[in-house]
Amino acid sequence: MRHQTIYFKHQPRIIAVSTIAGTKECEGIVGRYVETALNDDMYGESTYEKAECKMLSHVIDGAIINAGLERHEVDMIVSGDLLNQIISASFAARDYSVPFLGVYGACSTMAESLAVASAFIDGGYCDHVVAATGSHFASAERQYRYPLELGTTRPPQSQWTVTGAGGALLSRSGDGIRITAATLGKVVDYGVTDVNNMGAAMAPAAADTILTHFRETGESPSQYDLIVTGDLGALGSRILKDLTWEKGLDISENHVDCGEIIYNVIEDEFQGGSGAGCSAVVLNSYLHAKMMTGSLRRILFVATGALLSTVSSGQGESIPCIAHGVVLER
Amino acid sequence: MRHQTIYFKHQPRIIAVSTIAGTKECEGIVGRYVETALNDDMYGESTYEKAECKMLSHVIDGAIINAGLERHEVDMIVSGDLLNQIISASFAARDYSVPFLGVYGACSTMAESLAVASAFIDGGYCDHVVAATGSHFASAERQYRYPLELGTTRPPQSQWTVTGAGGALLSRSGDGIRITAATLGKVVDYGVTDVNNMGAAMAPAAADTILTHFRETGESPSQYDLIVTGDLGALGSRILKDLTWEKGLDISENHVDCGEIIYNVIEDEFQGGSGAGCSAVVLNSYLHAKMMTGSLRRILFVATGALLSTVSSGQGESIPCIAHGVVLER
Repeated sequence: MRHQTIYFKHQPRIIAVSTIAGTKECEGIVGRYVETALNDDMYGESTYEKAECKMLSHVIDGAIINAGLERHEVDMIVSGDLLNQIISASFAARDYSVPFLGVYGACSTMAESLAVASAFIDGGYCDHVVAATGSHFASAERQYRYPLELGTTRPPQSQWTVTGAGGALLSRSGDGIRITAATLGKVVDYGVTDVNNMGAAMAPAAADTILTHFRETGESPSQYDLIVTGDLGALGSRILKDLTWEKGLDISENHVDCGEIIYNVIEDEFQGGSGAGCSAVVLNSYLHAKMMTGSLRRILFVATGALLSTVSSGQGESIPCIAHGVVLER
Repeated sequence: MRHQTIYFKHQPRIIAVSTIAGTKECEGIVGRYVETALNDDMYGESTYEKAECKMLSHVIDGAIINAGLERHEVDMIVSGDLLNQIISASFAARDYSVPFLGVYGACSTMAESLAVASAFIDGGYCDHVVAATGSHFASAERQYRYPLELGTTRPPQSQWTVTGAGGALLSRSGDGIRITAATLGKVVDYGVTDVNNMGAAMAPAAADTILTHFRETGESPSQYDLIVTGDLGALGSRILKDLTWEKGLDISENHVDCGEIIYNVIEDEFQGGSGAGCSAVVLNSYLHAKMMTGSLRRILFVATGALLSTVSSGQGESIPCIAHGVVLER
């Protein structure tokens, strides 16, 4: 490949956002910026999967309403999630008479969907696109690991899948956060096979995309108020800073990881939050608010995804990972 | 939504294709156009999933080589498949140092990836993009239905998942098939819950996209040499023709379904072929050849996908479906 960074000439805007999150997620610093706080992680549904889907619908609706639009004014929904066959996204999209592009990038979905939505707007194909994703602790646990009822002990390097969803309404014009560029990630695999250590598996992908971004744009980390990763957690973030440092790039001054900041007290969650909902919630609540009030002016949002499945792990494969970066400016 | 059809001003070209398929698939009329015929559906691998992934790598490589390009000249790979967390696509992409966009549209993936790739080329972000997908009978059976070893009887309305993969190399310029427009599908659900009757579930989605396409473009079916659906099978195709007929659109003259034509003798396969590999193989072998020799000049390629999972079916949900259409001209 010749270049991974693409520039959006017309700078699509995020004109509205919407977020929802579970009780645990809303206790933290980020939590107070979340639009809708659940007091029941089942969200009144009979299964975790249905609750996850309902959260996603909630933020798609929320982003449309907060933008002052009607459903029929939306040109496309770009969404995906962690569940097999991205059922949360597909079933949520069923309720909208709107073209749907399903994407899969595991926990990198928020960045992937923002990049795809931006390209469709910037290229002149759409005026209004919703980019959204989410995850649910309980549906992820039982799909990827064990049913909660087993009460399995969690190892110290594990993370806690965020129960929450976030959506953004991107528009060709209007007031909001401008998306000026994206650095699309390659699949990177350093041979990590420990499915309880996603941070270590994903850190090399984040490092690859961040290093590529700065090499291709010729910019330096200090030109960003924040370099935000998705859900590396505490351990993964340390590995990321080491990996970029080794290559001569110091991001320690302004790096922050959504997984590290979403929970108030790190206890059960060990290394912090994870899941597609992690960066989706933090970006579309806390970070969005900070950008709109001017305390943050320019951020590089790099969401990371671990592209494994229980079948690939069961067959002894290592964990291929990816990270997509999006430049947000105010 | 205001419109589902987008037009590609610069008309990205399919400058090369590549296909691979299993023994059963290569017996039919389509089979003789397939580039690589397997004589072992395991493709020398230890698991069906690894064989599926290897087929996908084979056609990604094949498309690049057939285009006379090197891997590093490719700007992006857009791919997805039917396996949980699209592991075939992600693991195939791992071997390329190229940006990767994972998409999920079940059996509509070939059309979805062509549409996304076209938008990225037409919008000026990429010069060369590979769009590819595939499926494997045995990996799909054991994930969606039963392990083959059980010897489960198949109901008459069922289809046979195609073992095969197809890839196309799209370019901003060059000689090839031009992609002039795409009609992006909405999620449509008529309440079908029979997971053995995908044709009936997907036909309404195909009808919706085809009706929308002709309404928005103002064209008539006779302006196409073929209106090709992905994998409705024999029964689904009849339903599609009924549904469009009811709405005043007669496509019976020039409609053909990839699932109906891929197998020579319909016996075990009942209603015909299905799977993401079905339309990918037929488009990139038989249809591509017919277009390049001039016997087909203009086709509407509408791949359909059933967006269910075993979990959604187990929870009593019906099957939401989608169909994306792409206009191919020579």
